[in-house]
Amino acid sequence: MTGPRYTDLVTGLPASVPFVGPETQERARGRPFRARLGANESLFGPSPRAIAAMQDAAREAWKYGDAQNHDLRVALAEDLGVAPENVMVGEGIDGLLGYLVRMLVAPGDAVVTSAGAYPTFNYHVEGYGGVLHKVPFAGDHEDPDALIAKARAVGAKLVYLSNPDNPMASWHPAERVQAMIDSVPDGTLMILDEAYIEFAPAGTAPPIAADDPRVIRFRTFSKAHGLAGARVGYAIAAAPLIAAFDKVRNHFGMCRISQAGALASLSDRAWLAEVRARVSAARDRIAEIARGNGLTPLPSATNFVTVDCGADGDFARRVLAELAARDVFVRMPGVAPLDRCIRISAGPGDQLDVLAEELPRALEAARG
Amino acid sequence: MTGPRYTDLVTGLPASVPFVGPETQERARGRPFRARLGANESLFGPSPRAIAAMQDAAREAWKYGDAQNHDLRVALAEDLGVAPENVMVGEGIDGLLGYLVRMLVAPGDAVVTSAGAYPTFNYHVEGYGGVLHKVPFAGDHEDPDALIAKARAVGAKLVYLSNPDNPMASWHPAERVQAMIDSVPDGTLMILDEAYIEFAPAGTAPPIAADDPRVIRFRTFSKAHGLAGARVGYAIAAAPLIAAFDKVRNHFGMCRISQAGALASLSDRAWLAEVRARVSAARDRIAEIARGNGLTPLPSATNFVTVDCGADGDFARRVLAELAARDVFVRMPGVAPLDRCIRISAGPGDQLDVLAEELPRALEAARG
Repeated sequence: MTGPRYTDLVTGLPASVPFVGPETQERARGRPFRARLGANESLFGPSPRAIAAMQDAAREAWKYGDAQNHDLRVALAEDLGVAPENVMVGEGIDGLLGYLVRMLVAPGDAVVTSAGAYPTFNYHVEGYGGVLHKVPFAGDHEDPDALIAKARAVGAKLVYLSNPDNPMASWHPAERVQAMIDSVPDGTLMILDEAYIEFAPAGTAPPIAADDPRVIRFRTFSKAHGLAGARVGYAIAAAPLIAAFDKVRNHFGMCRISQAGALASLSDRAWLAEVRARVSAARDRIAEIARGNGLTPLPSATNFVTVDCGADGDFARRVLAELAARDVFVRMPGVAPLDRCIRISAGPGDQLDVLAEELPRALEAARG
Repeated sequence: MTGPRYTDLVTGLPASVPFVGPETQERARGRPFRARLGANESLFGPSPRAIAAMQDAAREAWKYGDAQNHDLRVALAEDLGVAPENVMVGEGIDGLLGYLVRMLVAPGDAVVTSAGAYPTFNYHVEGYGGVLHKVPFAGDHEDPDALIAKARAVGAKLVYLSNPDNPMASWHPAERVQAMIDSVPDGTLMILDEAYIEFAPAGTAPPIAADDPRVIRFRTFSKAHGLAGARVGYAIAAAPLIAAFDKVRNHFGMCRISQAGALASLSDRAWLAEVRARVSAARDRIAEIARGNGLTPLPSATNFVTVDCGADGDFARRVLAELAARDVFVRMPGVAPLDRCIRISAGPGDQLDVLAEELPRALEAARG
């Protein structure tokens, strides 16, 4: 018996995972983390309205979700000032990125991103046989000019920018991003990943021109809305591109409970303001803890603070390991020179107390 | 501006949808259905334990779900008498079928199924450029011998059987299915879709030999467990095939609330027994309503009854339309001669009262 005959493409794929989840690490360690500050989740939780809506919807979980995500699409469209035909809801940005890559990328097709940018996007591109071309960050920022130049040079089908950026927490003002959109080469589609946009200063997001065929924007309920575990992301783009998702998506793939939670969360402006305020205070506290330990916090437009540990990647990896040994879960950028940093998610006081307590010990051990 | 450059494969795909959901129909109609008996959902609802677990988990929805689905995999493995390495949890059988087809089917590859069998499987195969070869049902049953003969003749990578069957509600005894597994050609993988297995008589499921490389089985929490809206399915197969899902799946794609609901539901044997009893009674009532109207209910090993309307597909489509006009949502098989039937989901008394009231009128209108 020969067993399954995989495609050549899949046979050649590694079994690698973009991220190792905290639960996986906890099982390997044999004990839980005391501080869960690594996945840029919203430790302040979902809106109370969203929780109530999901608790109600749990009783109705016997029904398949609405395959069109109608109510959520309409609410998002109204909120964004676009038509529902410009909005696609999906199983997190991860799921939507997978569909988009599948639609555009055949084996050998060129895709451009930054070295050190979102690994799950790279996972999808490689999973469909695309060829990744990576340009370096300019300092701690993604480099729009270099991304565009590379996209032009290789005839890229996709060019990826996150603004604000993960993992560096940096951001470009709207004008700079709009200039990038305006210089996207013919035949290239720009992905503008705005997962963290709710935490950014006013003037970070360029105006939404939903019918612009050069760009697709992604946003999510996983960050500011505190619904990472519910898996709800959305795309904003020209209607023909949005319609094309219907050719490949899992039409009944959305969790009905999550649809209800996202819709309720969208209406809770007060909670969003509250989360933003708490995140801002937490960022200040993380920065203070970092500085108090001789480290350099980078400016942040996200719900995490990237902290320069002041040496090379090996040192930062030791700091990360020593924090994990002290039950503090954080993550760090994957490539040099960004990997001189660790990345700490905003959280409530008791979680940051653990960080404040353990960081000096972790640094001492990493230096020792 | 040229806009996105889709792959040739995606350019050639239709924008068709495997199923039109009841909410979509309700919006088109401008009013809700009174009886929701078309999607083979479990109208008896989820286990109270599952509801409670999901309500608790809603508060924790800010955390990403466990990417390994560890607790649920371990519980399923124990329940099934296999190793956790033989079990993959995913976003419903639909999501898992999509991953499996992606792993095996390249453009031009042959896949065998029955004419009239599960449309979403066909959607995935066509979506990856596979060539579908369909064999007719033998009467109201899928035809294992014809499926195997066709798989051998075309060198199929996949051959699909659902047991019990959807849309005909028929079933084969375990021995017949095992004989099919034992005759799977080298290089073909058999998909055994057991979505409805909990409703079938004892002796319907062949013994699980998880390391058999010839077959992958799919089961779900969408039917007997009443969690269709939560999107939790699972696959049982040899460890190397299960591991290969990690190359392509959306690792953080599972809803955390759904993981909790499925785990709790799995432990609630009493609820499962209760649902089975209610489904059995509802099947009897549907059969009685059908016979009382001069129609012929087919034997069922599922949570629905397929009812032979006694004429051709055009007549059954008229019956379906007339039922919809009377606010009763049901579905029907897509191809002749199966399309002489309509397919009615089990439901509680008040839902079947609506059916009993409207079916005679729908039939009269369809005949008139």
